[in-house]
Amino acid sequence: MSVDSTPPMEMLSLSDVVEEAEFSQRVPIRSIIGRSDGGAGLAGRVVRIGGWVKKGREQGKGAFAFLEVNDGSCPANLQVMVDATVFKLRDLVATGTSVHVEGVLKLPPEGVEQKVELAVQKVLAVGTVDAAKYPLPKTRLTLEFLRDVIHLRSRTNTISALARIRNALAYATHTFFQKHGFLYVHTPIITTSDCEGAGEMFQVTTLINEAEKLEKELKDNPPPTESDVKAAEELVQAKGETVTHLKSEKASLGKDGDGVAEINKKISAAVGELKRAKENLAKFEERFNLGERCKHSAGIPKKDGKIDYSADFFARQAFLTVSGQLQVETYACALSSVYTFGPTFRAEHSHTSRHLSEFWMVEPEIAFADIKDDMKCAEAYVRFLCQWLLDNCLDDMEFIVNSIDKGAIDRLKLVASSDFIKITYTEAIAILEEAVKVKTFENKVEWGIDLASEHERYLTEDHFKAPVIVYNYPKGIKAFYMKVNEDNKTVAAMDLLVPKVFLCSFQLY
Amino acid sequence: MSVDSTPPMEMLSLSDVVEEAEFSQRVPIRSIIGRSDGGAGLAGRVVRIGGWVKKGREQGKGAFAFLEVNDGSCPANLQVMVDATVFKLRDLVATGTSVHVEGVLKLPPEGVEQKVELAVQKVLAVGTVDAAKYPLPKTRLTLEFLRDVIHLRSRTNTISALARIRNALAYATHTFFQKHGFLYVHTPIITTSDCEGAGEMFQVTTLINEAEKLEKELKDNPPPTESDVKAAEELVQAKGETVTHLKSEKASLGKDGDGVAEINKKISAAVGELKRAKENLAKFEERFNLGERCKHSAGIPKKDGKIDYSADFFARQAFLTVSGQLQVETYACALSSVYTFGPTFRAEHSHTSRHLSEFWMVEPEIAFADIKDDMKCAEAYVRFLCQWLLDNCLDDMEFIVNSIDKGAIDRLKLVASSDFIKITYTEAIAILEEAVKVKTFENKVEWGIDLASEHERYLTEDHFKAPVIVYNYPKGIKAFYMKVNEDNKTVAAMDLLVPKVFLCSFQLY
Repeated sequence: MSVDSTPPMEMLSLSDVVEEAEFSQRVPIRSIIGRSDGGAGLAGRVVRIGGWVKKGREQGKGAFAFLEVNDGSCPANLQVMVDATVFKLRDLVATGTSVHVEGVLKLPPEGVEQKVELAVQKVLAVGTVDAAKYPLPKTRLTLEFLRDVIHLRSRTNTISALARIRNALAYATHTFFQKHGFLYVHTPIITTSDCEGAGEMFQVTTLINEAEKLEKELKDNPPPTESDVKAAEELVQAKGETVTHLKSEKASLGKDGDGVAEINKKISAAVGELKRAKENLAKFEERFNLGERCKHSAGIPKKDGKIDYSADFFARQAFLTVSGQLQVETYACALSSVYTFGPTFRAEHSHTSRHLSEFWMVEPEIAFADIKDDMKCAEAYVRFLCQWLLDNCLDDMEFIVNSIDKGAIDRLKLVASSDFIKITYTEAIAILEEAVKVKTFENKVEWGIDLASEHERYLTEDHFKAPVIVYNYPKGIKAFYMKVNEDNKTVAAMDLLVPKVFLCSFQLY
Repeated sequence: MSVDSTPPMEMLSLSDVVEEAEFSQRVPIRSIIGRSDGGAGLAGRVVRIGGWVKKGREQGKGAFAFLEVNDGSCPANLQVMVDATVFKLRDLVATGTSVHVEGVLKLPPEGVEQKVELAVQKVLAVGTVDAAKYPLPKTRLTLEFLRDVIHLRSRTNTISALARIRNALAYATHTFFQKHGFLYVHTPIITTSDCEGAGEMFQVTTLINEAEKLEKELKDNPPPTESDVKAAEELVQAKGETVTHLKSEKASLGKDGDGVAEINKKISAAVGELKRAKENLAKFEERFNLGERCKHSAGIPKKDGKIDYSADFFARQAFLTVSGQLQVETYACALSSVYTFGPTFRAEHSHTSRHLSEFWMVEPEIAFADIKDDMKCAEAYVRFLCQWLLDNCLDDMEFIVNSIDKGAIDRLKLVASSDFIKITYTEAIAILEEAVKVKTFENKVEWGIDLASEHERYLTEDHFKAPVIVYNYPKGIKAFYMKVNEDNKTVAAMDLLVPKVFLCSFQLY
């Protein structure tokens, strides 16, 4: 059940009151045009709205302007009409202009697409845009281009739809696991442990920063040279000899001889000088060594030929986590059902659609469960996510279908409504061996192989045309800690395959 | 409204069915003893439970054993009785033993504290513990000690209560913002931008790793020496001279002279040798330079005396984020109401209760709002969190009250139920100036100061004895981007003060 404030569109009825957001002086546009009547039933209501102009045009020889305004609450825009007597139209029509306006909702002339439009009575605030400089034209842009205007790309249809979908999936994830009594655990991001060699790790350090500070400091205050140090050493020796000399002179005077008081004074002074010379030498040596460090290791401290991590922030080498698995398992062994949902990192230079250097990952852990419970959980979670998108993001999914992926909604419906096929790895191999008789795979099919992407796609997209869970994999291709089954050949691990995506992998310990 | 599967205790009634968790073969202990009747109404029911023995003891001369079992679903334990005829008691009683058992719920003898106990009929699985080696005795342990047994500390009363409270607050946070139409945005963790100089940053790099690989490789395959390079240079020169010599010889022969074919062959061979000598020299030079780099900068590439970040993973210097503010603001300028909730990092060597090197932070951003909307949001959020804890974590909060902080529940009730006091900075200074007449502060009180912790505590704990929002701070003590008020002296920023904690700070742009 959703506790979202913006209810699924089909749940909005004509009797719904259009209310301003509680902490923002605007009625979300979704709650106007997302209604089943497209907002027609709200005609006559005075509302404030805020948003950004997607398209604007002056009409009637500059007598009025039409603005299509989007506030990010839904993919659709509200049509806004401003009379030239209300505001300087030239300042409103540029794409990207931010507008905060009050007006009355009106039925538009018949025959147009929108069901309601806003006739502005008062302009509360405007953030103008220089159309010549605004980098997002009305035409369709490539995702690659948008990487260069990253501060504005969330204003595009695609990125804003993805942001709403991602938000929905994140909240659905929490809702699903909380509903089933799982506790959310924040595992550490900075870690000193590797996790099953999941991939190359990023190092987290303050050593380089410290080294650069040191280099700068040594540039401002150059360290002593080798001969400076030598001179300081000689000074210590000379001062030491003076003390020795004075002491033997004192000894020759006898205990109460003449001049003892005077020589004591001299000794005391010489000892003081020796002490200062020693301190000076120590300081020279320390700074000389720092200078050498800068010369030989870019200022990074080394010991026995290796980097001396005792000087790093955590006094040891630290990395960004590649998985919270190890840490969250310790919670599962105390709290029974837990999950993580947080960022993870891989320092791999792989440019494929399956590799990111930073991504958010969900890791559930269940105690007192077997592989069947595990499969049930994975299936329920994935179906819950699909249904949630259908219930809460249908308008955004329609945008995706129209502009990016025709089959997206159909696949969501398929996954949300079908019982997942569950087959053992051994059964999967048998199906693939049958397929080989009439079809060619690039990779060999035989018991013991790790299923290739083409095999997985064949199973889910061609053979079953449905989501498939493959379980009980050969122990040889899975990690050492997985639970070995009674056959002593397979382990209790599973992968969930969904048409067009490889979703997730699970295992038992 | 909570969608948690474990409803607040007062919502459970005697007619509730005790069901197993959907993906785990156990009835959560909370759903037995967390009922208003303490579970008495469930007597006679056969259930499976799983958990860890907190305390165990053999009784009746070894005829049976009592185990107090906790499964992390609530702070309280279920009393479990096992007969010696059912299982080897010695293997069950050690603290930390993991037990998965099936049995019948029974009313205990009168006069004992618990309202129900489980008489075990079948032991499904046991993870035994060597009591001599288990590092968590039954006695109370310091948090400092628990840092050394971090893999087991979630089994202690304190850490498990904190884990449940943290989980509740995280889900309450999402529920609050989703309910109010805010979209959750994941801002990048690895970033190249600093954020208002919030603090020292951790560097994220693969340079050191690459340098170490290089050092190892050069140790295995030592680079050429300077004289190796010199020799290679000389070889190139010699081979070049041979080619020149042969070419001039050929010229002297004339176009069709005798031996042209033969000399062409020689030239071709000499050119080939020259090419190979050049390639060899290039390789020598490259590896010689790598060797020099290792000698002079610990293998880290440098250019013009500075580290050459073009060789780093992102081809520039990168850090861990100190705040997602900058990035999430770009989303607010497209989606109107957004929030972040993710990890942030500070590389500061400060050991106070207000400093952590890694912590999770919530950052809401609202478009088309003023400082009053902002204050309303902060107040509503904090009150929502407090009420959520009272509704969902009362048992854990009672543990906190009994063992750590006597006033914790009273403060939650106070904050959840009182309207927050809202005063301007100027009013706050006036109150503090009155206070100075009868009370001494360490820090001077005058208009323009940044309020010290003692001032904030005086306002919320002594003067108002309630949560206080202070707003409209002098512009001189706040960041440059905050909105200047009409008085041209103050900016639209606010801090929320709560008795015993400094909670959060907000501002307008």
